[in-house]
Amino acid sequence: MLIPEPVQRLIDAFSRLPGVGPKTASRLTFFMLRGGEDLSLELASALQELKANTAVCQQCFNITGVGRTLCEVCAHPRRDPAQICVVEEPLDVLALERTGGFEGHYHVLDGALNPIEGIGPDDLHIKELTARVAAGTIKEVIIATNPSIEGDATAMYIQQQLAPFGVRLTRLARGLPVGGDLEYADQNTLLRALSGRQDLGE
Amino acid sequence: MLIPEPVQRLIDAFSRLPGVGPKTASRLTFFMLRGGEDLSLELASALQELKANTAVCQQCFNITGVGRTLCEVCAHPRRDPAQICVVEEPLDVLALERTGGFEGHYHVLDGALNPIEGIGPDDLHIKELTARVAAGTIKEVIIATNPSIEGDATAMYIQQQLAPFGVRLTRLARGLPVGGDLEYADQNTLLRALSGRQDLGE
Repeated sequence: MLIPEPVQRLIDAFSRLPGVGPKTASRLTFFMLRGGEDLSLELASALQELKANTAVCQQCFNITGVGRTLCEVCAHPRRDPAQICVVEEPLDVLALERTGGFEGHYHVLDGALNPIEGIGPDDLHIKELTARVAAGTIKEVIIATNPSIEGDATAMYIQQQLAPFGVRLTRLARGLPVGGDLEYADQNTLLRALSGRQDLGE
Repeated sequence: MLIPEPVQRLIDAFSRLPGVGPKTASRLTFFMLRGGEDLSLELASALQELKANTAVCQQCFNITGVGRTLCEVCAHPRRDPAQICVVEEPLDVLALERTGGFEGHYHVLDGALNPIEGIGPDDLHIKELTARVAAGTIKEVIIATNPSIEGDATAMYIQQQLAPFGVRLTRLARGLPVGGDLEYADQNTLLRALSGRQDLGE
């Protein structure tokens, strides 16, 4: 064995991260070896404190600071509790918040339906979503799952579950990405952009 | 602040890794949040023990296990101490070892000359290389610095330093990568492949 055990161990740990292959893992490890002690220790302590110092919002399942029952969005007095946006992951909340275009609350499912990987409705926070809608204050549910097969299946399932409550159900628009080029758009996106075309001058 | 502090802290730590931008850093962090506790703790402990349990070979500056003065290559009874291969980083040693085509010793410089970043000859293990060659057992020095401007400058500097000792100085061949396509080779590589052409049938 040419690689000392502690080095190989870190390479193995890095390799388990998504999108990090063995080559990147070695590069990161040797960067750590050459780089100052402080980055490895900072990364180690940030990792250790991550779970200990974060909590999950009891209402929308977004990530929040430890000791809080509601996340910043749910606890915000100006946000509209009548409109909720259903997303797959906390990262999606961040992406939507960055747009500054949504003033309602969120609901994080923690994934999408995926029969192949054995993820069914009970593995997601769908029951809790139904309960929130059943409580009566919600007027619109914007389903913002990913535009993928799993995201579409999840959206359809949620639609069926929420239909009896008579709330407005919407889904994020699909079409050409801003700054995109018609010529390079794939067939499905172009079809969606066509079928979802909007009237001008209204 | 929408992102809880412990989450942001880990995102910041990941962002400092080479090749990891803010988006990848968030993805890794949220992967850690969703994934099992064991991976974050394993990664944290591997990071903490990396420096504590590794040492640098006193002869070639390669990475080795703690408590050892020589690395596995330098300590190996069958490796030829008369031939040394000069590389920039420990990762380069691994790459060469993987080929199985080199039976000599190594010398890790810990970088390459880079005036823009202020890396001069004294920041690299060049003095130690000169001392090893001056000791007299070495017959050939293969300079295997990267085929880059910095690597070439370093090779040239080493060549000047070692010239008085009369040892054989060589450099890794340049040319078309195996499995590559002539059509896609860049001009410089093609020029090198031409000027370094080898006779057939000898």
